[in-house]
Amino acid sequence: MPSQPRLDPSDILVSTTALVNSGDLEALSRHLEPLDAGLTATLLERLPITHQAIVFRLLPKDRAMSVFERLSPGQQSDIISGLQAADVADIFAGLDPDDRAWILEELPAALASRMLHGLTAKERQLTNEVLGYPKGSVGRRMSPEYVSTKTTYTVAQTMERVRAHVHDAETIYTLPVLDETRHVVGVVSLRDLLKAEPAQTIAEIMHKPAVRTAYDSDEDAARACTDRGLLALPIVDRENRLVGILTIDDAVRILEHEETEDSSRQGGVEPLRRPYFATPVRRLVTSRIVWLLVLAIGAALTVQVLSLFEATLAEVTALALFVPLLIGTGGNTGNQAATTVTRAMALGDVGLRDLAQVFRREFMVGLSLGLLLGAVGALIVGIVFEPRFGVVIGLTIVAVCTLAATVGGVMPLIARAIGVDPAVFSNPFITTFVDATGLIIYFLIAKTILGI
Amino acid sequence: MPSQPRLDPSDILVSTTALVNSGDLEALSRHLEPLDAGLTATLLERLPITHQAIVFRLLPKDRAMSVFERLSPGQQSDIISGLQAADVADIFAGLDPDDRAWILEELPAALASRMLHGLTAKERQLTNEVLGYPKGSVGRRMSPEYVSTKTTYTVAQTMERVRAHVHDAETIYTLPVLDETRHVVGVVSLRDLLKAEPAQTIAEIMHKPAVRTAYDSDEDAARACTDRGLLALPIVDRENRLVGILTIDDAVRILEHEETEDSSRQGGVEPLRRPYFATPVRRLVTSRIVWLLVLAIGAALTVQVLSLFEATLAEVTALALFVPLLIGTGGNTGNQAATTVTRAMALGDVGLRDLAQVFRREFMVGLSLGLLLGAVGALIVGIVFEPRFGVVIGLTIVAVCTLAATVGGVMPLIARAIGVDPAVFSNPFITTFVDATGLIIYFLIAKTILGI
Repeated sequence: MPSQPRLDPSDILVSTTALVNSGDLEALSRHLEPLDAGLTATLLERLPITHQAIVFRLLPKDRAMSVFERLSPGQQSDIISGLQAADVADIFAGLDPDDRAWILEELPAALASRMLHGLTAKERQLTNEVLGYPKGSVGRRMSPEYVSTKTTYTVAQTMERVRAHVHDAETIYTLPVLDETRHVVGVVSLRDLLKAEPAQTIAEIMHKPAVRTAYDSDEDAARACTDRGLLALPIVDRENRLVGILTIDDAVRILEHEETEDSSRQGGVEPLRRPYFATPVRRLVTSRIVWLLVLAIGAALTVQVLSLFEATLAEVTALALFVPLLIGTGGNTGNQAATTVTRAMALGDVGLRDLAQVFRREFMVGLSLGLLLGAVGALIVGIVFEPRFGVVIGLTIVAVCTLAATVGGVMPLIARAIGVDPAVFSNPFITTFVDATGLIIYFLIAKTILGI
Repeated sequence: MPSQPRLDPSDILVSTTALVNSGDLEALSRHLEPLDAGLTATLLERLPITHQAIVFRLLPKDRAMSVFERLSPGQQSDIISGLQAADVADIFAGLDPDDRAWILEELPAALASRMLHGLTAKERQLTNEVLGYPKGSVGRRMSPEYVSTKTTYTVAQTMERVRAHVHDAETIYTLPVLDETRHVVGVVSLRDLLKAEPAQTIAEIMHKPAVRTAYDSDEDAARACTDRGLLALPIVDRENRLVGILTIDDAVRILEHEETEDSSRQGGVEPLRRPYFATPVRRLVTSRIVWLLVLAIGAALTVQVLSLFEATLAEVTALALFVPLLIGTGGNTGNQAATTVTRAMALGDVGLRDLAQVFRREFMVGLSLGLLLGAVGALIVGIVFEPRFGVVIGLTIVAVCTLAATVGGVMPLIARAIGVDPAVFSNPFITTFVDATGLIIYFLIAKTILGI
């Protein structure tokens, strides 16, 4: 391998520049691998600013920190501003999500935090591409404008820090407490500080912290914040070092957005991005037409199923009378189960690990509902029409309710397992599925009982 | 009228005691009407404590305050503790909600607030019955443990108040600002206080307050709090005098409960009071069976409709094949409209005043969807089956989609207008309604086109 870097910095400079210009970040990352911290620092000193930022960002986490510490303060801020530049962000934004995950190791927390500081919301969004936090992660929603304190500081010292940040911090009411190496080891509230004596140390008055990593989903972090009634939740990197905070008002906004998405998708409609009256009629139509078409294609299945039994229908037309009642009841039972389980998942009460238990419970619930409704249905139809029709309707209701509740209950969990929003896969989808299978069950039972 | 009170306090004492013992609060209220403040104060001094509380609570608001001011401090606290007593609460809890609204005027804010102070959650609930705030109002959810300040206080004086309440206040981060007569004229945050100079007055640094009255719905107040990202919202009486605060964590809890209720009812299931796995299967069944029965009774309508057209069905069995597809599409279109409008109402984007506009928009959306889907449906059915079936299906889809979107869109608003939770009246209900009317439209179109 003739292009393998040797210890001559000039050679390395040439080969690195070539790789940066080629845009092959993966090859560049491999190329940098064998260099030690000293050599990497020397290399950085000779590169133009944009190249510096790209090379620096591709270093493994440990090396990034030791290289950074070797640089002069001026070079350090060049790297930071290089990482904040729009063209550098574009380069990393172009990465495939899978590549991104393994090429971009975490940036050390101290740098990540410094990089995010003082940016506008739009600049911060660019920077998130560089930091590598995935879409939907709380890393993209957190704020770096926190006030932190240390275990060894006194209450008086911490109050000084609060006063110093009173104009720029996102919140001054919750302070993450750090040890000497930036690990989050506690939290104190401004109220705790006011309750305490000025000479007490933070270690004496701090509480156990609830934290989430920047890679956790924003919904999960938001719920951790609101469930505990926290005014701010510290966000850490994978080594439990502070990188930002999520404040309760942002948490509420995240959850509200999720609720809208869930409720919309359960109704088979894409969530609107704007208030109802600000959305043009044309946009309302497009938010609904795709789902309607998909569901109509699914419903075409019922036409197929009924075609199979057309002879049976022609012989006993009365069977057609009960079709909407039966599939309606099946659809409602399925919706109920899906609604209950989807909501329980949103609240964190039910997870993938509970699949077997949800299956068992919903099977029992569906069977119970089927027996109750089936008995009523059999009785009424038996009296109003014929007893043998009563038997057919009763048995069908039992079977359809059991099937619908079970499918409706487990479907949201299966959706989550295959990485789809549970709400997408939910009510209208279940209705369509239950319609088709319910009809098959109905006609099979009818043919057996009526001897057609 | 021989029992009409004259100016002899002894007579009044006897007649009042008789009325209190009879439990007829309405008569007692009328009996107290002609007494002036001095006479009422004299009367109160002679009554036992429980009677004092009952009589006092029945006084009109203005008189209550002037009577209270005539009493000695000892008597004042007797009245307060009498109003907090469980047996007094029981008496007022027994009132019919309509009677309650006109017999119980607001208690003066200073007293209401003093009465609620230092109570446990359970005691506070009892007290809410005495205060007369209706169920579902924010008066029942607010906390009286606030720290307030006055326009004329300095920042330093206010910080003293904060420190004094640091152990017992619900929050010390948001302080309502009062004028000399308890009116809420501003709010300041603890952050504002830390930013300001100690000698500045509150009037100089306070912000315009967002407030709600104790009679407003808890959901409305909660959304006012979270929408603005306020850590606490001052709650006032009808004269804009402070009676409590709603903190953001309580606001989040109120909204979460509402979301669960909305999402459950849209799925046709009563909200569960406990987490999914903590709810026994029997309870799951009862949370669903009533709705299923109601909807099944509704669906029995479809059996009726189909019976009417049984001869048509016997003649052209193929018509039965499209029944699930057509009612499914209608149901889905209706659900989409209902889901969108219900969510927009929950977010406060759409209200009752918008009924006509929602009707127009959803009619247009439904018509557009119907034309798009109807064209596709007519084409496919026309090719696979017969052209004249294609025409029937196409026309039916146009009519059913238009009907379904319009009904689905306005139904949540109509529900609100008649005082029913919009979510109750929603998706499964609309589906059932659209099923039955859709079938009538289908068979009428079929009979016309096919000439049966």
